Amino acid sequence: MANKKVTIKEVAKRAGVSITTVSQILNGNNEKFTRKTVDKVMEAKTELNYEPDYFAQRMIVKKSKTIGVLVPDITNPFFGQLLRGVEKVLYRENFVSMFCNADLDEQKESDYLEELSRRGVDGFIIASSAISNQAIMETLRKKDIPFIVLDQKKAEGFSDAVLTDDFRGGKLAAQHLVELGHQKVAVVMPKKAPDNIQKRLAGFRKIFPEAKVINSELAKIGGRSAAAQIVGNDITGIFAVNDEIAFGLYLGLNEAGKRIPEDYSIIGYDNIDMCEYVTPQLTTIAQPVFELGQTTAELLLERIKEPEKEWEEKMLPVHLVNRQSTKNIKQHT
Amino acid sequence: MANKKVTIKEVAKRAGVSITTVSQILNGNNEKFTRKTVDKVMEAKTELNYEPDYFAQRMIVKKSKTIGVLVPDITNPFFGQLLRGVEKVLYRENFVSMFCNADLDEQKESDYLEELSRRGVDGFIIASSAISNQAIMETLRKKDIPFIVLDQKKAEGFSDAVLTDDFRGGKLAAQHLVELGHQKVAVVMPKKAPDNIQKRLAGFRKIFPEAKVINSELAKIGGRSAAAQIVGNDITGIFAVNDEIAFGLYLGLNEAGKRIPEDYSIIGYDNIDMCEYVTPQLTTIAQPVFELGQTTAELLLERIKEPEKEWEEKMLPVHLVNRQSTKNIKQHT
Repeated sequence: MANKKVTIKEVAKRAGVSITTVSQILNGNNEKFTRKTVDKVMEAKTELNYEPDYFAQRMIVKKSKTIGVLVPDITNPFFGQLLRGVEKVLYRENFVSMFCNADLDEQKESDYLEELSRRGVDGFIIASSAISNQAIMETLRKKDIPFIVLDQKKAEGFSDAVLTDDFRGGKLAAQHLVELGHQKVAVVMPKKAPDNIQKRLAGFRKIFPEAKVINSELAKIGGRSAAAQIVGNDITGIFAVNDEIAFGLYLGLNEAGKRIPEDYSIIGYDNIDMCEYVTPQLTTIAQPVFELGQTTAELLLERIKEPEKEWEEKMLPVHLVNRQSTKNIKQHT
Repeated sequence: MANKKVTIKEVAKRAGVSITTVSQILNGNNEKFTRKTVDKVMEAKTELNYEPDYFAQRMIVKKSKTIGVLVPDITNPFFGQLLRGVEKVLYRENFVSMFCNADLDEQKESDYLEELSRRGVDGFIIASSAISNQAIMETLRKKDIPFIVLDQKKAEGFSDAVLTDDFRGGKLAAQHLVELGHQKVAVVMPKKAPDNIQKRLAGFRKIFPEAKVINSELAKIGGRSAAAQIVGNDITGIFAVNDEIAFGLYLGLNEAGKRIPEDYSIIGYDNIDMCEYVTPQLTTIAQPVFELGQTTAELLLERIKEPEKEWEEKMLPVHLVNRQSTKNIKQHT
């Protein structure tokens, strides 16, 4: 039952015209030909059930309708949700996403950028914290491929930008803890933190200039290990820069015999859906993740259609979701 | 700084040979030419810094070194972990994965199959429960594209297969509950369950032929809603066919004023890493998810290299991970 692929040569033969003529007509350049020629070619195509070779067609139209998407850690549901937002828009517009998991590995990231741009990707969404500006320069700018790096300002002047208000997010977290009477607080975050997380810290420090910083990998396991550095201090309030770290703190502090929120108030960041399913339910700063994915995809597609338009920057809002992991300690002081 | 792309024509001109000769040599068909001709072409390529057009090259070698991967729900960390396993192997072998999130939507799944095979994908990994055999027949078999559908036996005789031992997993869950003294038990699972989940039920029924089945969407929100159907029955033991449903049951039963494991023993399936971070930690059946992804990718790449070899089927083991969500109730009976 093997299907021998019909070639353009056979279509040309059947229509009694040249291969070039068939190629031109099937790629929509009809105006140079008579109505009769166009009809003959279209009939031959239908009769032979000819499907143009994808790669041959791409050589002519030079658009692959493909977007490369790089994420640092696909097992974090935050990125799952982000990808769903991206994909919703791309699917609607008949684009396909080539998605890659870069594992926070800089080498892997630039390999993927190189490989995907070689494959004629029309644009990139880079949601990856490890990527260096240099790698972006070398592969994307040189080849003139549009891209958006999430959480990177357009200030650099060579891409559009979609941001969430990280400074305000950090400040909201601090305000919440202050209102509950906390004075000794810590921020749990990676040592080499990307820009967006630095901004969360800056916002938090607007209220708590003296906040202690405890280093942790940006994952559950990191939060779990960080717990040891918290116990023994006089800290009562903790700001985890993502929800995964907060879940790790739950376990680590629990293993140290501590209770949340009785011993420690914890506030996370992202509002992934798991926040509702842990005990106690996690108070957190909500980012509009799905919308972030959608907006980014839309902006990138607009750029692909209109490469010369002015650079745009969009800022999406964040808000506090107050649940059960933070406690008012005013009565105890 | 715009980079004008060097064409094959310019390479041919510089080397003083025909375009066809350059094309043949750059695609590795050197044997027909003299050493001198080959050298001239390679020198011209280097001097002009010529990069072959990706699509042009693909037309000649007819391999895109791309694998399409379809998953039903990227926000479930199970699939995140699976993709990491797949990607580890593909990255090592210089393949790229075109990943698509099918959202349990049959239309979207077959659209993606169609679109990706048009793009010359070399093979597919389908980890998607909604996909119908018909869609697979129509697009993949007709075009002779190798694929592996996870949790589908090779019995159909037109693909390799990688399975985990679902029947044994269901049976292990039941044995665990029996040993703890549970007699009235329920299985929480989707109404239209795919094969692999049906096998978990069959294994469970080997021990509990009378087990009650409660229907639930295959997600946290489904488990949360299903809780209402459990409260009021005389059930003491619950088998959730994935961990996400179990997390939903935690919340739903909690909202109904019930406690785990005091009122209900719950056992999940998958052993995603979140199991350790919920309270109580979830007892579950562990699947080797990362290994499942790796094995599937390896088997598919072998098939692509050797299309005519015998169909293979690999079965990966599962095991019980005993944590705190199940309780011995023998003393109460």
